[in-house]
Order: sequence, then structure tokens, then C-alpha cells
Amino acid sequence: MPKSRERENSNARKDGHALALAEDRQSLRTRYLDIRQATEALAEPLSPEDQTIQSMPDASPAKWHRAHTTWFFETFLLKPHAESYRVFDEDYDFLFNSYYEAVGARYPRPRRGMITRPDAVGISAYRQHVDEAMLRFIENCPEDALPLIELGLNHEQQHQELLLTDIKHAFSLNPLQPVYRERDRRPAANDSAPRREWHRIPEGVYTIGHSGDGFAYDNEGPAHRTFLHEAQIANRPVSVGEYLDFIADGGYRRAEFWLSDGWDLVRQQGWEAPAYWRREGALWMTYTLHGRSTLREDEPVCHVSYYEASAYAAWAGKRLPTEAEWETSARLHPGATRAEWNCHPRPLAPGFAQDVWEWTGSAYLPYPGFRAAKGAVGEYNGKFMVNQMVLKGRSCATPPGHERLTYRNFFHPAARWQFSGFRLAEDG
Amino acid sequence: MPKSRERENSNARKDGHALALAEDRQSLRTRYLDIRQATEALAEPLSPEDQTIQSMPDASPAKWHRAHTTWFFETFLLKPHAESYRVFDEDYDFLFNSYYEAVGARYPRPRRGMITRPDAVGISAYRQHVDEAMLRFIENCPEDALPLIELGLNHEQQHQELLLTDIKHAFSLNPLQPVYRERDRRPAANDSAPRREWHRIPEGVYTIGHSGDGFAYDNEGPAHRTFLHEAQIANRPVSVGEYLDFIADGGYRRAEFWLSDGWDLVRQQGWEAPAYWRREGALWMTYTLHGRSTLREDEPVCHVSYYEASAYAAWAGKRLPTEAEWETSARLHPGATRAEWNCHPRPLAPGFAQDVWEWTGSAYLPYPGFRAAKGAVGEYNGKFMVNQMVLKGRSCATPPGHERLTYRNFFHPAARWQFSGFRLAEDG
Amino acid sequence: MPKSRERENSNARKDGHALALAEDRQSLRTRYLDIRQATEALAEPLSPEDQTIQSMPDASPAKWHRAHTTWFFETFLLKPHAESYRVFDEDYDFLFNSYYEAVGARYPRPRRGMITRPDAVGISAYRQHVDEAMLRFIENCPEDALPLIELGLNHEQQHQELLLTDIKHAFSLNPLQPVYRERDRRPAANDSAPRREWHRIPEGVYTIGHSGDGFAYDNEGPAHRTFLHEAQIANRPVSVGEYLDFIADGGYRRAEFWLSDGWDLVRQQGWEAPAYWRREGALWMTYTLHGRSTLREDEPVCHVSYYEASAYAAWAGKRLPTEAEWETSARLHPGATRAEWNCHPRPLAPGFAQDVWEWTGSAYLPYPGFRAAKGAVGEYNGKFMVNQMVLKGRSCATPPGHERLTYRNFFHPAARWQFSGFRLAEDG
Amino acid sequence: MPKSRERENSNARKDGHALALAEDRQSLRTRYLDIRQATEALAEPLSPEDQTIQSMPDASPAKWHRAHTTWFFETFLLKPHAESYRVFDEDYDFLFNSYYEAVGARYPRPRRGMITRPDAVGISAYRQHVDEAMLRFIENCPEDALPLIELGLNHEQQHQELLLTDIKHAFSLNPLQPVYRERDRRPAANDSAPRREWHRIPEGVYTIGHSGDGFAYDNEGPAHRTFLHEAQIANRPVSVGEYLDFIADGGYRRAEFWLSDGWDLVRQQGWEAPAYWRREGALWMTYTLHGRSTLREDEPVCHVSYYEASAYAAWAGKRLPTEAEWETSARLHPGATRAEWNCHPRPLAPGFAQDVWEWTGSAYLPYPGFRAAKGAVGEYNGKFMVNQMVLKGRSCATPPGHERLTYRNFFHPAARWQFSGFRLAEDG
Repeated sequence: MPKSRERENSNARKDGHALALAEDRQSLRTRYLDIRQATEALAEPLSPEDQTIQSMPDASPAKWHRAHTTWFFETFLLKPHAESYRVFDEDYDFLFNSYYEAVGARYPRPRRGMITRPDAVGISAYRQHVDEAMLRFIENCPEDALPLIELGLNHEQQHQELLLTDIKHAFSLNPLQPVYRERDRRPAANDSAPRREWHRIPEGVYTIGHSGDGFAYDNEGPAHRTFLHEAQIANRPVSVGEYLDFIADGGYRRAEFWLSDGWDLVRQQGWEAPAYWRREGALWMTYTLHGRSTLREDEPVCHVSYYEASAYAAWAGKRLPTEAEWETSARLHPGATRAEWNCHPRPLAPGFAQDVWEWTGSAYLPYPGFRAAKGAVGEYNGKFMVNQMVLKGRSCATPPGHERLTYRNFFHPAARWQFSGFRLAEDG
Repeated sequence: MPKSRERENSNARKDGHALALAEDRQSLRTRYLDIRQATEALAEPLSPEDQTIQSMPDASPAKWHRAHTTWFFETFLLKPHAESYRVFDEDYDFLFNSYYEAVGARYPRPRRGMITRPDAVGISAYRQHVDEAMLRFIENCPEDALPLIELGLNHEQQHQELLLTDIKHAFSLNPLQPVYRERDRRPAANDSAPRREWHRIPEGVYTIGHSGDGFAYDNEGPAHRTFLHEAQIANRPVSVGEYLDFIADGGYRRAEFWLSDGWDLVRQQGWEAPAYWRREGALWMTYTLHGRSTLREDEPVCHVSYYEASAYAAWAGKRLPTEAEWETSARLHPGATRAEWNCHPRPLAPGFAQDVWEWTGSAYLPYPGFRAAKGAVGEYNGKFMVNQMVLKGRSCATPPGHERLTYRNFFHPAARWQFSGFRLAEDG
Repeated sequence: MPKSRERENSNARKDGHALALAEDRQSLRTRYLDIRQATEALAEPLSPEDQTIQSMPDASPAKWHRAHTTWFFETFLLKPHAESYRVFDEDYDFLFNSYYEAVGARYPRPRRGMITRPDAVGISAYRQHVDEAMLRFIENCPEDALPLIELGLNHEQQHQELLLTDIKHAFSLNPLQPVYRERDRRPAANDSAPRREWHRIPEGVYTIGHSGDGFAYDNEGPAHRTFLHEAQIANRPVSVGEYLDFIADGGYRRAEFWLSDGWDLVRQQGWEAPAYWRREGALWMTYTLHGRSTLREDEPVCHVSYYEASAYAAWAGKRLPTEAEWETSARLHPGATRAEWNCHPRPLAPGFAQDVWEWTGSAYLPYPGFRAAKGAVGEYNGKFMVNQMVLKGRSCATPPGHERLTYRNFFHPAARWQFSGFRLAEDG
Repeated sequence: MPKSRERENSNARKDGHALALAEDRQSLRTRYLDIRQATEALAEPLSPEDQTIQSMPDASPAKWHRAHTTWFFETFLLKPHAESYRVFDEDYDFLFNSYYEAVGARYPRPRRGMITRPDAVGISAYRQHVDEAMLRFIENCPEDALPLIELGLNHEQQHQELLLTDIKHAFSLNPLQPVYRERDRRPAANDSAPRREWHRIPEGVYTIGHSGDGFAYDNEGPAHRTFLHEAQIANRPVSVGEYLDFIADGGYRRAEFWLSDGWDLVRQQGWEAPAYWRREGALWMTYTLHGRSTLREDEPVCHVSYYEASAYAAWAGKRLPTEAEWETSARLHPGATRAEWNCHPRPLAPGFAQDVWEWTGSAYLPYPGFRAAKGAVGEYNGKFMVNQMVLKGRSCATPPGHERLTYRNFFHPAARWQFSGFRLAEDG
């Protein structure tokens, strides 16, 4: 090929690339605005007081979520890459770092609820300051900063869900049982969940994990092969009605179903039912973000720990699916993962225990070939790969668009404050 | 005396009594308004967030102080005695009871910081509702309710001081070192505190404790005789400058000066100085309600535990005065208790570590002949008479008028978040 | 007086003194042998295993008591004063120091049960080594060492009682309910304790505390005057039968009788009765050093905390005597302290809950004019003078001869593993 | 086949079977005697005191190990299946049950060190009583009891290793650094461990887990297929010398190498080196069952937690092998697992940190198709399948014969008191 032609081609490629990039930036700008605004919309029903408190070390104040997600953009994008950026407040680095050891010292996690100042209004100013800088930055930043912006947006979406689970926990400690948001309407109840069916996974070598162009966290890759034995996976999570049978059959009083660590917790904590359930006379009531509520037997059971999921499965003579089985089944039977089952349009029901994260029987460990990213963002996932179990799917509190079949959520097996349920599996 | 005359006299006495009572009520009304307003003035610099948090189980949120003092009037005056009183919110009884077992169940103390709702505005409404009812009640209430109103006002004054000590502790956890109130002006420093002098108490039987008409808590009485050996009491508390000598001489590293329990704490907590002191290079800084501040050697040392007071005294070859010695010395040498020493006009300096409560060497126990009041208010003092030490005097945070020579303040010997200092004594 | 006469007199005094001293040494030698032997006799029923364990941080292994009392003589007498003394094992200084900061580092108290080596036989060898050196030392030591030997013997007697209370606690955790020593015979039970009578103390200034020649701990002095209001003191401790009435009347379920800290403990620990009591069907059984045993209503109640003593007194409309009242009453009514009441000959019944230490209403604080001894032995008592209450009298486990009216025993108000009861008082 | 022939054959088979069974019983009898005796030999150097204490909740007293292994035979074999068996002591069921919920209540684990009675001699009597019954039982028991006896013997072998690790921990708390057994001879040290080589595992589907006739625990099966990516496994564990490089490079001070939970522990516990290492001046010493000892650079590093193994691997730019990789590599390269490396003849060196269990990167979870055994023995493994990591291999303290390639040992990632090391792997 003659040199001149080559250059032409190269220019054409550059132009095309520049055009695509401009479109990318435009769409990123829109996504940025949408996602940042969505956080503020979630905080809107919360008073300054509500936004301040921390109800347990695992949870964080809403105000902190709003600030920390902002700090992420400031720390990993603006400070290192935006030349003329003026830091909003030097102290915020200490206050709003979550766990990034590489970035420096940080305020102790269990004391996040002690930070009354900056107040909620101050955090709004911080967000606005960073947003303005970020919008300028998105226009002009080097191309290789774009993936990091995408990471920052996904990070913010994760905190949107945490903001809801954390405020639910905090409100649950208030005997007034506050309403976070009024229920718009509740669909008519069915007598029970839809019939459980089993979807078969034939024995074989399957590929799981993320590959390709779209965004994914580092822990979702690399895509890799895994051998699965034949198995059957339920088409839907276990329902409240089914779980009530377990309770009625002495599930919380019979050691034989429980992992030893789980049984210790049952006795120490006096567990008798999922979190937020409260027996009132003959009735089970529950606390939701719409306030005090009756239980509905046709909905998925929610706010159970891994131990409870595992005990139920043992009681039912089944087991939990592994994460590889879950993901493979979801690919093989795309309708089944969430069924038609009475799933609300999401905007009506943030915080409503409808869709649930699903505990799997897999420990949260690196995939074969996993390498953590370099630098501080490499601390995002890898350093938590011990002592936790993988959850798949999404919950009613997961922001729309923040879901993937390859997503690996993870929590300690005792955690109950997430919107966590489970489905059953059995050997083929 | 002829019957008719007798009756006349009796009427005259009644009239006089009615008149005196009306004056009493008028003055009580004024006091009520003043004291209730003073609480609100103390809360005024605090944001809703500031008012909500609880920084340790011993402390309470400002909002809670505002509500609890209101609950006291509602529970002990309005509910039982004001016929047409409409309870503001039935749930508040559970939320804002501090420790009165006789009144019923109560919200767990260490979780007071979890109550975001009612919010600060809601508490203002609660206060207004009760204030209106109380003002009507003061006009018409049976005469024997008056002492209980007086108790309620003194109770509120105690919580005014606690509101300040508690918010100081909460703010101290914030690395931003928030300013509660700007310092108006700080008097010129002296090189050192005024010369220490010794006031002599001759051996003998003295009467201490409260008697007479004015208000006093039940624990201040009955007045009773006690034998004192000859002793000398310092004319002023130990100063910062003097305490720095103790530190410089290894005071916090030498077990020989410490009570055993105190020494354990020194090592467990890593104490090296009074609370809120922080070494910055070669300098000691401190945190005050005016924010970060230099230490002044001419001021009384403050925010020390009983253990530190006791260790200092041992180091100095002296001891702490007993409460009987303190009170007797104050009667014998009225000027000495607080000296002329550079004591600010109070309104300038709430929360400024100038005047200090003074640890005595006396355990907080019932006075001979002490009987707790009947009913729930009998829980006010008596049930705490173990494991605590008596402090005498008042601090810069004590509301004006809320001080008596017979006052018996009491805290656990490890407590440091109160404005607590001490003075020395020695055998005669 | 002429010079020569003076000298003569002086010589005569010296001779008399030498003679007296020789007698002293002879009698001290006998006492030394007796007391050291008594410790071994108490340990004799214990297997090597029994001697090794520590059942809670407040308790110590029997083997440790045997070693620590020996270490006391080695450290405070032999090492500094016996010239040719050969230390038995250099490491023992670290292992068997209890709390003397001045002597150096020491093994952490809660781990005393981890010291399997030296074994019980090794400790016997240690005791024998020190005994031989001490017997030589007693013959020849400087005169001013004698009081320190006396202190060591009293110290050992204290540990004899602790050895019994500690092994009782340890055995109580064994479901086999081991028998430390068979009961020789149990006197016939009476229906109830002897009639309670009240002994009057007239108002006045009294002298309490130790003075004079005999041995006493430093905390018992100086003798000093104190003013007492008129009061009545019971002639005997509260009996099991009387205490059962308190339990039957809901004593452990009614907050109104309890100090606040005590009530917290009742609920946290689930207290329903004194330590070692166990309800078996309709019956209360107790654990004693003779093994499982029935309760006897005519015996003093034992193994109660200060909180329980105080709650009982509140329930009975009485109070506990102060230590000054207790001591004064004992002087005024010598027969009353321990009555004729069915008190066993001691040798038959060590560990039998017959005679009890009696909680007083006095906090353990220094007497006016108290000065701790110089040097390490000054740590013996003074540094514990906070957070504890005084007990008077003696218990069935107190070694014969180790009792004085001025004795001040002290424990934390929550302690129940000592042989502790109480008697009532009331204002005159 | 004619009927008569069939019967004949059947009889012949029966005879042959009976003969084989008799041989089995004879060999089982021998194994029973050997293994039971081996336990006693391990306890032989321990005094009654040594046998009694429990140094942490995870550990158990030697006496308890001796009793509990005996209780296993009594409870699962003799009581249900040996008709005329006389229970040794009814109380032992409560005292010596470890964790079998199905069997009934049990003494709290953290209090095992409180059981001084029965004493060591009593446990010997218990063992003898059960041994006699078991030897009779082995002769006559139904054939299907034999596997359970085999399980009991393997169970006892596990406790033999625990007895050593537990007493090592207990002794390590004694400043006298007791010698459990004198070192016979120590082989000459090499300058360093043998050269590390990498063994390749080609990508493919492999079968791991136990199948076939020999004994294995239920958790080792079923044998199943698994897909492995190409990988390299080191031919030997990481050595002390190599680990010292990690320490010297700031390994314990650099968060970037650590799992988050591990880093928290490093700071909380002040870890600076493996367990039992102690810096003495410039030198690292260690505590072994032969007492205080110098470190040898050519030996495998031992007494590290999973967190330390994982941090070292991150520092080295490698990773830990999975359990499937470990087992597969061991099958592919049989010499490599333990190399010729200076491995002592075992009988010389129980407790000597030579051979080490090796942490893998696999969480302890059920194999595909795993089913726990029915009844109480089903609690043996399955209920612990959460929160622990798998270790492969064996240690110097593992009894000879108690090792299999399929063996799955498991401990919490923080555990350091086992003889635990690790080897490295990397992606192919």
C-alpha cells in the first residue's frame, strides 16, 4: 500500500474514532448526570438527621454515601488528571475514603455516624463542585480516563443500593417504624408463588465470567471454563410461603439443618425468622421502606443470611446452586432467572422486598487468571476475596442497568440487611 | 382566744398565703420560661445533624436532652395532675424516659443516637406543646405540685450542662474540630495561676448537707453532723501549669502514683494527658467548644478523671479533700472556693474550661438519715449511690443559679468528659 | 542521773530487750511453721489438676497461692536481707508476683491457669527451700525485719481463705460437683435463725481503727474519731430463711429495691438467687465444699453481692451498717457480732457457709491520716482504695487468729464468690 | 446353574467371606491397639497439670482429647451395638461430647480446661474400660459396625495431631518455654532449601476426590471431575529463608499484599512474623516442642495463617494452588509433594516444624454430589463447610498412615497454631 494511502486511511480511522469518542463522551455525560441525580433522588426523602446516623459498623450514613461516591471521582479522576482542579476541602480525603489503603489514612469506619459536619447541605455543595469539574473533565479528558469514569458511575450505583439497605436498617431501630417512601400501590396478592419448576443443566464444560466490551468489575473476569455435573436449578427463588413452612416445622430450633457457625448465631442472636420480621400475636409482620407491613406468601423470602438459606435447603433436601450453575442456568433458560412472576415496575418500588439477591453455595474467591487492577482501584474487589459468599442476580434496590449475569455480589454469610434471598438446586 | 377572732386570723393567714402563692407562681412562671428558653439557646448553634448523634453510651444527643427534659414535665406533672392535658405523642414515653423503672419500658440508652425521627423541628413542637400546657398548669395547679415543677427546672438545668459536655465529646471525634461558639474574647493570660494558699479547718464536729427552705436535691440531705480532723485545703484548683509538671515528671508512666484501676486504664487507653489534649510537635493543644485551642497555664486543669486527680495528689504528696472538708472549708473561707482568680463572666464562656467541678476523695453514698423520695422521682439520685465519686462546686457549663455549697455531683472515677478538675488538701 | 547509772540501765534494758526478742523469735518460728503448714493442709485434698486451673480472672490457682505466698517471703525478706540466700528460680519472680509494680514485670493475671510447670511437686520444693531459709533467717535477722515477716504470715493467711473461695468457684463449674472435703457432721437444723434483736448505738464521737502493738494492716489505721448518729444494728446476719422471703416476694424481679448498677447485673447475668444456689424442681440446692447440699434456713445467707445485700435491705425497709457503726457496735455489744448462734467449731468446717463476711454500706477509702507504707509493700492495700466496698467480720474460711474488729476486707460490689453475707441496721 | 451348585457356591463365598472378615477383625484389633496406644504415648510426657489446661477456645486439654476419643467409641459403637456394655460413667456423655448436636447437651467448649475431675488417672481407667469392651466388640460385632470402628480410629488419629498442636500452644504461654520432648538429633542445616522448581499441570478435565475401598472421610468424596486451566505448582513449600525475605521487605507493614481481613488482624494482633517466632535482639528465635530453638532457613515456614500465606504469595507475584491443582499436581508428580527434602524419620520428630500442612486457595465447601452421612456421625465434616480454607498434605505431627492425597484438612484463615505452611503456584 502506497504511503499516502496509508496516511489517508489512518486519518479516516482517526476521524471515525474521534466521532465515536465524541458520541461516547456525550453519552457518558448523560449517564453521569442521570446516575448522580439518582443518588440525590434517593436521599431526598431523608432529613438531615436521617442522613447522618450509622446503625452498625457494616452500614454507612446516607450522607457518607453521597460524599464518598463524590470523593471517588475527585480522588481517582480530578486530582490526578484534571489539571486546574481545585480540591473542595483537603480534609475530605481523610473523612470519605472508604478502604483504599493506597490513598492514605482514613477515618475509622465504625465512627462514620459521628460526622455531623459537613452537614447535608455541605455535601450537596461538594457534589455540585465535583459535578461541575467532572462535566468539564468528561469533555476534555484523555481517552484512557473514560473507563475509570465508568467505574466511578458503577461504584455510585452500588452505593445507591447500599444507601437503601443501610437506611432501612437504621429506620428499623426506631420504634416509630418510619416510612421512607409511601407505597404507590401494591399489586393484588396471589395465594402463593408460581409453581416451582426445575431447569436442567447438562453435564459439560461451560464458560462463565465476563468477556467483551461492556463494563464489568475486575472480579467478573476473566471468562473461563468450568466443568459442571448435571444439575437442576429452580426457576424462581424460595417464597415467603415456603419459608413459613420451614419455620413452622421448627427450622430455627433444629440443629440438624444448620451449618455449625450458623447454629451458633441462631442461638446467640435468638433468630426465629428473617431480619425485620416480627411476630405480633399470631401474625408475622415485617418492616419495609414503606413502614410496617404484612407479609405476602407469594413474594420471595428476603433478608435471610447465607446460614438461613443453607438451612432451608438442607431442610428441603436440596442445596444452593453454585455461582457457575446459577450463571449457566441463566444463560440456558433466560426467562427463568426472574420469571414473570409478580415483579413490579422498579420505579414504583425501591426498597420493596420483591426481587432479591440470591445466595449461592460458592465462596467469593478469584476466578482462574484473575489479576487485580494496578493502583488504588485494584483494591476495589480483590482484597475482599475471603470469608464471603457470592450472591447472584439483583434486588429490587439495584439501580436499573446495574445488573449483569456475570455480576458477583458478595457478603459475609451472617449478613441479613441486604435484600437477600435464594433459590434451590439439586444434583441432576 | 374567742372563736370569732380565731377564724378571722385564719382567713387573714389564708389571704396572705394566697398572695404569697400568687407571687410564687408568677416567679415560677418566669423561671420556667427562662430556663426552658436557655435550653433552646444552647441548642441553637447545633444543626439537626449535630443534635442527633450520640458519641458514647454515657452521652446523649442534644435533641434527646431537649425531649427528655420536656418528657419529665409531661410525665410527672401534666399526665398525672393536669386534667385536660392531651399527650403529645404516646410513643415518646418509650423514647424519652431516661432511667425511671417505675414509669415503664424505655428505649435502650446506647441507641439514643438512632432516633432521627422525631426530628429537631418535631422536638421543638413537642417543647412548645408542653410549655403551653405547663404555663396553664402553673397558674392553677395544686400547691403541692410546685416543688415538683421546681425539681423539673433543676433537672433541666442539669441537662443543660450535659448537653454541652456531650456535644463537646461528639465534636471532638470530628477531625474538622468544629466550633460550637466563637470565643468572644479571651482574657490576657497570666504566667501562672495565682499563688496557692492553704486554708485551715480546725478539728471538730461540723454540720454539712442541705437544710432550710430553698430547693435542693434529695441527696443533699439531711443536714447532719460529721467529725473532721484538722486539715488544710488549697484555695484554688490545680492549674494547667502545675499539671504539666506532673506530666513532665513522668506522671503517666509511673505506676507508684496511681490507684490500681486507674493504672490499668492508663495503659489500656494509652492516656498521656487530660482528655482533649493533643500533642502537636512540642506543643500541647486542646479541643474546646471554641474549637482547637492552645493551653493556658494559668487556668485550672480540666477533663481529668478521678484517677488522674488522685495520681496527681499522690505525686504532690497531698490528697484530695473529702466532700465534708470541701463544704466546710467553703463555709469557713467563702472567698476561697472560686477565688478571684480569672473567672470570666459566665455568659461569655459556656463550655470554656475555666471553672471546674472538683473531684473529692468521697464516694457517692447516702448521707446518714437519707431517704429517697417516694415514687418514680425517688429514682432521681438514690439508685446511683455506688461506684461513683462526689464532685463539688460547679463548672463553667453549669447554668447560673444552679449551684449550691451542698450540691453533690457524681460520676464514675474514669469519667473525663465532664468539666472536671480538683484541688488539693493535706492533713492538718 | 550519774553517767554510770545511766549506762547500767541502758545495758539492763538491752538485756531485757534481747531476751524478749529471743522469745519473739521463738514464737514467730512456731507461728511461721504453723501457718505455712496450714496452707499445705488446705491444698492436700487437691489433685495436681485441681491446683492448676483458674476459673475466672478474679480467682487464682491453688498452686499459684502456694507459690505466691512463698515468693512474698523470698522477695521481701530473703532476697534483700538474707545475705547468703540462693534464689530458687529466677523466673519465679515474673511468674508469682501478684501486683507489685515496684518489683517489676509480672505474668498477666488472667493467664495464671496456664502455668502447668512448675508443677505441684515443684512448688512443694520451692516452699521447702524458702522455709528452710526463712527459719534460719528468723533466728538471725535484724530486728526491724520482724514486722515484715509478720506481714508475710498475715498475707499467707489471707491467701488461705482465697484458696478456698477460688477452688470452690472452680469446682462449681464441674457438673460432677466435686467434694473438696467430706462433711464430718452437720449440726441439727433449727427451724429458723435465732430471733433478731437490735443493738443501739447512741449518738456521739467514737474512735475506730487500729492502734496499739498487735499486728494490723496499714489500711486499718490510724485510729481516728468519727461522729455517729444514733442507730440500731442487728445482732446477727440475715438468714437463709429470711432471704428466701425476699426471693419469694419477687426480690430479683423488682427494680425498685436495687441500685441501678446492680439491677443491670441482675438482668445481664440472670441472677435469681445467691451464687451457687440452684433450683431443682421446687427445692433450692446449693453447692458447697462438701459437694451438693440442701439449704438450711437457720444459717446466714452467703455468697451474695453488695447489690443483693443492698436490695434486701431496701426491701426490708432497713439499710446496711457503715463500717464505723459495725465496729462500734461490736465494741459496745461484744457478744452480738457472732452470737451463739450455731457456729461450728472451725476445724470441722472450712468452706462451710456458716460464718460470713458482712458487707457494710461503706466504700473502701483511706482512713483520715492514712499513709501507705514506703516501698513495694506499700502497694499492699492503698492502691485498691476505689470502686470497692468494705466487709467486716470474718468467714468460716478465715484462718483462726486472722481476725480483728478493725479488719477491713474489701471487694467489688458485684463479687459473690467470697463467703459474703450481711446484717441490717436502721437509723436510731 | 443347578440349585445345588448355586448353594455350594454360596457357601463357599460365605466361608471365604468369613475368613476374610476374621482377618479383617484381627488386623483391626491390631490397629485399634496401636492407635490407642499411640495416643497414650503422646500424653506420656505430660504431667497431670499439663493435661488439664486449655489455652484458648479453639484448643482442648490433652486429657480431654484422651477422653473424647474414648467417648466416641463408647457412644457410637458400644452403647448402641454392644449388648451387655456397662457405661463407665453417665456424666461423661455431657463432659466429652465435642459438637454432636444429635447426641445431646454438652459441656461448653471454652470451659474444657475447668474439668479437673476426672483426673488423668481417671481418664486412663476410662480408656481401659472402653478398650476392653472394644476388643470384645471387635471380635463379635456385626459386620456393618466395622466401618464405624475405622472412623473412630481415624478420628483418634486426628486428635493425636490436635493434642500436639494444642499442648504446643499451651506451653508457648509459659515463660519457662517447657520442653515436651528432647530433640534426639537435629540434621545438619543446609544454607537454604533445595532449589524451587515448577511442575506443570496441562489444561484439562481431571478427576479428584476419593473413590475406591480404603478409608476416607465423607468430605473427600465423591470423586468428581473438574476443569483445570494450565498452571505451575512449586515442588516444595516456601522455606523459612524465603519467608524472612518477605519480612525484611516490609511484608507485615505493607497493606498492598494483604486480604482486607488479614490486614485488620495484622494490626490488631501486632503480627510481625509467624506464630511462636520471637525476635531476640537481631535474631529470630522460635518455640518448638523441643523448647526454645533457633530458626533454620532450609526448613518450610510453619505456623502461618492463610492470610500470611496469601500475602506472601501476592508479594512474590504468585498465588496459592487450589485444592484441585494441589491434588492433581501430586498425582502427576508424585515425588514432588514432599520432595526428598530433609524430612526426618517421623518417630524422631513429632511436633518438629518440618513437614507442614499447606494452605490452598480453596474454600472448604462440599464436593459436587456430597451427602453427609446419616445420623450423628454425619455431623463429622459437613456442618463446618463455611468460613474455612482447605489445607492439603500432612504435617510432622500427623500420625503415620493418616494421610491421603484426597485428605481435606480445614481451618479458619486466621488459624496459626496448626503446623501450617504453603507452597506457591502460578497460571500456566
